[in-house]
Amino acid sequence: MAKGRKTAGKKSRGKSKRAGAARRLRVHVTHGPSIVESQTVTPERMSKGAKAFPGVLGRLDVSYGDGPQALDAGLAEAEVLFLAGTVDLSDLKRRAPRLKWIQSMSAGVEKLAPLVPDGIALTNASGVHGPRGGEYGIAAVLMLNSRVPQFVGNQQKARWHQIHTTPLKGKTLLLLGTGAIGGEVARLAKGFGMRVLGVSRGGKKQPNVDKMYRTADLAKALPLADFVLSTLPLTPETKGLIGRHELDLLAPHAGIVNLGRAGVIDYEGLAEKLRKGELSGAVLDVFDEEPLPAASPLWSVPNLILSPHCAVDDEEAYVPRCLDIFFDNAKRMLAGKPLRNLVDTKLGY
Amino acid sequence: MAKGRKTAGKKSRGKSKRAGAARRLRVHVTHGPSIVESQTVTPERMSKGAKAFPGVLGRLDVSYGDGPQALDAGLAEAEVLFLAGTVDLSDLKRRAPRLKWIQSMSAGVEKLAPLVPDGIALTNASGVHGPRGGEYGIAAVLMLNSRVPQFVGNQQKARWHQIHTTPLKGKTLLLLGTGAIGGEVARLAKGFGMRVLGVSRGGKKQPNVDKMYRTADLAKALPLADFVLSTLPLTPETKGLIGRHELDLLAPHAGIVNLGRAGVIDYEGLAEKLRKGELSGAVLDVFDEEPLPAASPLWSVPNLILSPHCAVDDEEAYVPRCLDIFFDNAKRMLAGKPLRNLVDTKLGY
Repeated sequence: MAKGRKTAGKKSRGKSKRAGAARRLRVHVTHGPSIVESQTVTPERMSKGAKAFPGVLGRLDVSYGDGPQALDAGLAEAEVLFLAGTVDLSDLKRRAPRLKWIQSMSAGVEKLAPLVPDGIALTNASGVHGPRGGEYGIAAVLMLNSRVPQFVGNQQKARWHQIHTTPLKGKTLLLLGTGAIGGEVARLAKGFGMRVLGVSRGGKKQPNVDKMYRTADLAKALPLADFVLSTLPLTPETKGLIGRHELDLLAPHAGIVNLGRAGVIDYEGLAEKLRKGELSGAVLDVFDEEPLPAASPLWSVPNLILSPHCAVDDEEAYVPRCLDIFFDNAKRMLAGKPLRNLVDTKLGY
Repeated sequence: MAKGRKTAGKKSRGKSKRAGAARRLRVHVTHGPSIVESQTVTPERMSKGAKAFPGVLGRLDVSYGDGPQALDAGLAEAEVLFLAGTVDLSDLKRRAPRLKWIQSMSAGVEKLAPLVPDGIALTNASGVHGPRGGEYGIAAVLMLNSRVPQFVGNQQKARWHQIHTTPLKGKTLLLLGTGAIGGEVARLAKGFGMRVLGVSRGGKKQPNVDKMYRTADLAKALPLADFVLSTLPLTPETKGLIGRHELDLLAPHAGIVNLGRAGVIDYEGLAEKLRKGELSGAVLDVFDEEPLPAASPLWSVPNLILSPHCAVDDEEAYVPRCLDIFFDNAKRMLAGKPLRNLVDTKLGY
């Protein structure tokens, strides 16, 4: 029996070698300078992530290298770029003549998309932030509802000032974007008895969302919201979607959360309304310039809680989930099948 | 038909008058100086709250009056004191010779209980804070898990420093006290996939709690906790329950929430551990001295978020829920039945 199994194993390895000879992929893995250790793809993590996709890693020739020189050397040969963070990808046609696919470890690829020449597929990591992002989203709504931004501001002044509020039950949460994070926030919000509204381009029905609006009808939805939570990517269509006019449609007791991209909301207008007390509070994880410069006035806007673009990232699950998408797509490419999480580089998501 | 109903109504009023003549209660309503408008009992709120208890308000002679003079005048005649907040209740035997029952609008009555002479029943408002308190409890756990105390501290220094964490799923919440608030936190925590442990005097099984410990076994439970949440009242048994030794049993990544009474936890020891980075964070709503003096070092302890003893109070439901208990108890007293929410003045809860 043991011998038989061994033979079968050898046969299978032999088969995979022959298939490998027929088609392999040259992959370069690179990380931008802001990537922390828990978000890096190492050979060890690669091997671990490959286990769910038998036979795939054996057909990949993988090089690893960060920094401009290593990147250029990698690009010169690579058919696939597996990318975490921001690196210089200008002039790709010339620098990466064999490149046919870029797998990004970001969900938002608004800066990368315009750099990708026709004929090179771009796939993103959309979906990896669902569970952790959903949790932070509902945490932000709970903080706003409990007036934690006010408590934090008063604490800095050693000021004892009671504020009594009511539970979330029956209050209205408006989701701008109903993808992985928005969908998870919706599920959790229903658990607290909230009414959940959603806005998306087509207004298509979503689970746990009581009513969907098309983006064109945004102005009808905003006045109904006790809380607005955006997970929208930055695209030509979403840029500046929540401007001063839209902010003015919100009730003064409303609070805003942004876990998507900063450019969707006019932060200057938001800061002004928070300073005037015309909105209850805001929780922001994303900014136009990151890291947010120390001189930015946003740091000290009242009733605003900032986190440095990390609140939706799962320390343990982020890399494994990105590797799941990468290996699934590598398998698809080796089989000549369409990739998943494919970005329309014109739409930007 | 209309006439018939009218007659029936008159009959019923007649009956209730006769019963009223047999037994009535003289009630004085008073508020301490720190009570905000939304927490006051007005004649209008009294009438509204009485609707669920037909016939009861008609048998009460109610006077209203805050401040020392009005209180003394009220106490001189009152059989029942309906009390919100803290007032001078020294020397009750002499000042309130007819008094037989005090209904407090607080859940914690550790300061009041020792002042109540034998023969006077003390009932508290335990239970009224469940829904809102449960929500703030899980909000506090979510904040600690997301490192919001760290973000808030870094924001004050305009410091961009990413911290990545993992979701609540599978993490352990240890509840000290499993009453109305603790029970609701347990229910919500299970919704996030947490493991919930509980500590109570007898260690009796509780819904949504995976394992209960007796207070005597506290030292076994503390090292297992990612988060500790106390809703314990202050009694001779709970005073100082979490001292330096117990704090040292916690994992350095653990966070602490206190929504019960301050005296249960050694805040000096807690502050020291937070300053040294030996605990992840804390969320405190209750303090030994309230309002917390502006000179208290607690205001500026790192990774500590303070709220001014209001986080569990429901702006809208608090007074109606207190009135529910009051009228239910008034009905019981008029019928000669035992009161609910009765405090053992020796135990203090």
